[in-house]
Amino acid sequence: MKTLQVELEDRSYPIHIGEGLLDRPELVMPHVHGKQVMIVTNETIAPLYLDKALHLFQDYETATVILPDGEEYKNLETLNRVFTALLEKHFNRRCTLVALGGGVIGDITGFAAASYQRGVNFIQIPTTLLAQVDSSVGGKTGVNHPLGKNMIGAFHQPQCVLADTRTLNTLDDRQLSAGIAEVIKYGLINDPGFFTWLETNMPALLQRKPEALAYAVERSCADKAAVVAADEREAGMRALLNLGHTFGHAIETASGYGNWLHGEGVACGMFMAATLSCHQGWIDAAQLQRIKALIQQAGLPVLPPASMSLAQFLDIMAVDKKNIDKKIRLILMKDLGQCFISDNYDHALLQQTIEEMLTASQQA
Amino acid sequence: MKTLQVELEDRSYPIHIGEGLLDRPELVMPHVHGKQVMIVTNETIAPLYLDKALHLFQDYETATVILPDGEEYKNLETLNRVFTALLEKHFNRRCTLVALGGGVIGDITGFAAASYQRGVNFIQIPTTLLAQVDSSVGGKTGVNHPLGKNMIGAFHQPQCVLADTRTLNTLDDRQLSAGIAEVIKYGLINDPGFFTWLETNMPALLQRKPEALAYAVERSCADKAAVVAADEREAGMRALLNLGHTFGHAIETASGYGNWLHGEGVACGMFMAATLSCHQGWIDAAQLQRIKALIQQAGLPVLPPASMSLAQFLDIMAVDKKNIDKKIRLILMKDLGQCFISDNYDHALLQQTIEEMLTASQQA
Repeated sequence: MKTLQVELEDRSYPIHIGEGLLDRPELVMPHVHGKQVMIVTNETIAPLYLDKALHLFQDYETATVILPDGEEYKNLETLNRVFTALLEKHFNRRCTLVALGGGVIGDITGFAAASYQRGVNFIQIPTTLLAQVDSSVGGKTGVNHPLGKNMIGAFHQPQCVLADTRTLNTLDDRQLSAGIAEVIKYGLINDPGFFTWLETNMPALLQRKPEALAYAVERSCADKAAVVAADEREAGMRALLNLGHTFGHAIETASGYGNWLHGEGVACGMFMAATLSCHQGWIDAAQLQRIKALIQQAGLPVLPPASMSLAQFLDIMAVDKKNIDKKIRLILMKDLGQCFISDNYDHALLQQTIEEMLTASQQA
Repeated sequence: MKTLQVELEDRSYPIHIGEGLLDRPELVMPHVHGKQVMIVTNETIAPLYLDKALHLFQDYETATVILPDGEEYKNLETLNRVFTALLEKHFNRRCTLVALGGGVIGDITGFAAASYQRGVNFIQIPTTLLAQVDSSVGGKTGVNHPLGKNMIGAFHQPQCVLADTRTLNTLDDRQLSAGIAEVIKYGLINDPGFFTWLETNMPALLQRKPEALAYAVERSCADKAAVVAADEREAGMRALLNLGHTFGHAIETASGYGNWLHGEGVACGMFMAATLSCHQGWIDAAQLQRIKALIQQAGLPVLPPASMSLAQFLDIMAVDKKNIDKKIRLILMKDLGQCFISDNYDHALLQQTIEEMLTASQQA
């Protein structure tokens, strides 16, 4: 087992990474302060891991909420089901919420913990690669609004994270690839050595070799933790973690939540950001080709849905949280493994990039 | 004009108190950081003060949400109307929300600001006495759940508060009295000199003499600010501000949100807490009589609804946020002007107090 400490002053917390951690109550017990533990999970995860999780917290008064599975349920209505369950059980402000599942469960549960009685503790047990490398670090929680993804939420740090790599064995291939998209992202943002490691080790990841998975989770979390520690509330460099997300959110929104997986949108979005960076002359064609090859090797899409239009992209991207005073801010790259935030790019090249991608998608 | 600074490190903010402050844009302008200002108000307040508020922020891009008036609308659904308005207008994370109205508007708007894009700025313009002396200090925001009041929310401090005492002229008498309940509360908690001042000056307050109102608002805010500065997240002494609220919430909940005003519930709750304290021998009968007389002089109730039962009181009080591990924690008094938090009272005396009050109410 590896333990990574996320350093955020009085909100610091450990991430434990390794095989079989769901069988080790001693890892979570120091982080439960009251007597009441509410496990929040979904219909897919419950049959697989709920018994183990209940066993993990057997020394406490436990209760369970099982939510429907899918990004389309990440909304205020589902959030309210968690509040109802907490109130029906008379859970007090010393209770602990446990997020057992992927990113959606983590985001809903974290926001429920942030706002139940104005803030209670929570513990994350991410069961997807995406959640292990992304939502387990950084304290972003929230739900979607019909007019925009993740528009309602809070920054709320967990007490601890338990990333049991054994849970990745029950992930389907498409979900595994979607998680790898975020792993590739860390290489692209500021860790070129990790990008090179991924070019070599992608087959091992796709074959779910435990050492490769554990290394990828650990290095991703460490990369993200360094960025978050420097900028917890996303005033500056934390925005780099949104590489691929502005394009990706547009794709997810336009195609209806849940049709494209988040990681698939991010993968395509990273390639679009790389293509725009190449058009600007900031990376060269060979680098762009390496990025494309790695994304495709991971089984991820590089082209947006053929049904989308330029106007749709630009409209949805205009609502992004990064934007200040109506300019679309993007994460772009000056080199492989060196991203920066910019609204100082050629808008015509942005349009050209989107149009090229849509044309390629229509011809594919 | 008086200005009171609430000291909360990097979340410190000023409360300006005085007549005609709605005509002074220079007071709010230093606290608006982006270009976009969303004014949230209700159907009662909009015809009275929305034009003035729009004029106050005339140098910005303004938009408005007008919500229905009443505690029964303080829920997630109404909150979502604010999010929808913000998203429809493409408001970004540098926007400012303005709460123009009473406590309900302040609580909803503050929570919307806490959670829109994971946190934006907000300014409070409280237009009721209750809001000026209570919700303008402390950063508590939130909405109700059918199973409990204020169960969903956040701690989120405003950038500044503008308490224009002229807005109190349009309050009806019942609302004015409800606000005075919270004013009396500050005297009872830890300011016996203020309690004595109120015994002398209650007629002036009820006649809405501007100097008396301004003094009561200022001293109440100062008393509350001192408590909040010592305990922002309600770990300890801040709970004292809940004097009368545990009983009061039970009354409000049992009678249906909106039938009893919050301040009316608090007034009756304070008398119930005082009566229990008297039964415990912690205050004497003469002190209890002074408390009863002041509450009644303010035109406020001292008896709960005759339709309630002991079981109803105890059930609802069991869900209170102050409770730890199932004991009902109450704010009680050892002397006039000296409250403390306790779960170490005689439970039989609590039952006796509630039963006496219900009997008196049935006989009244």
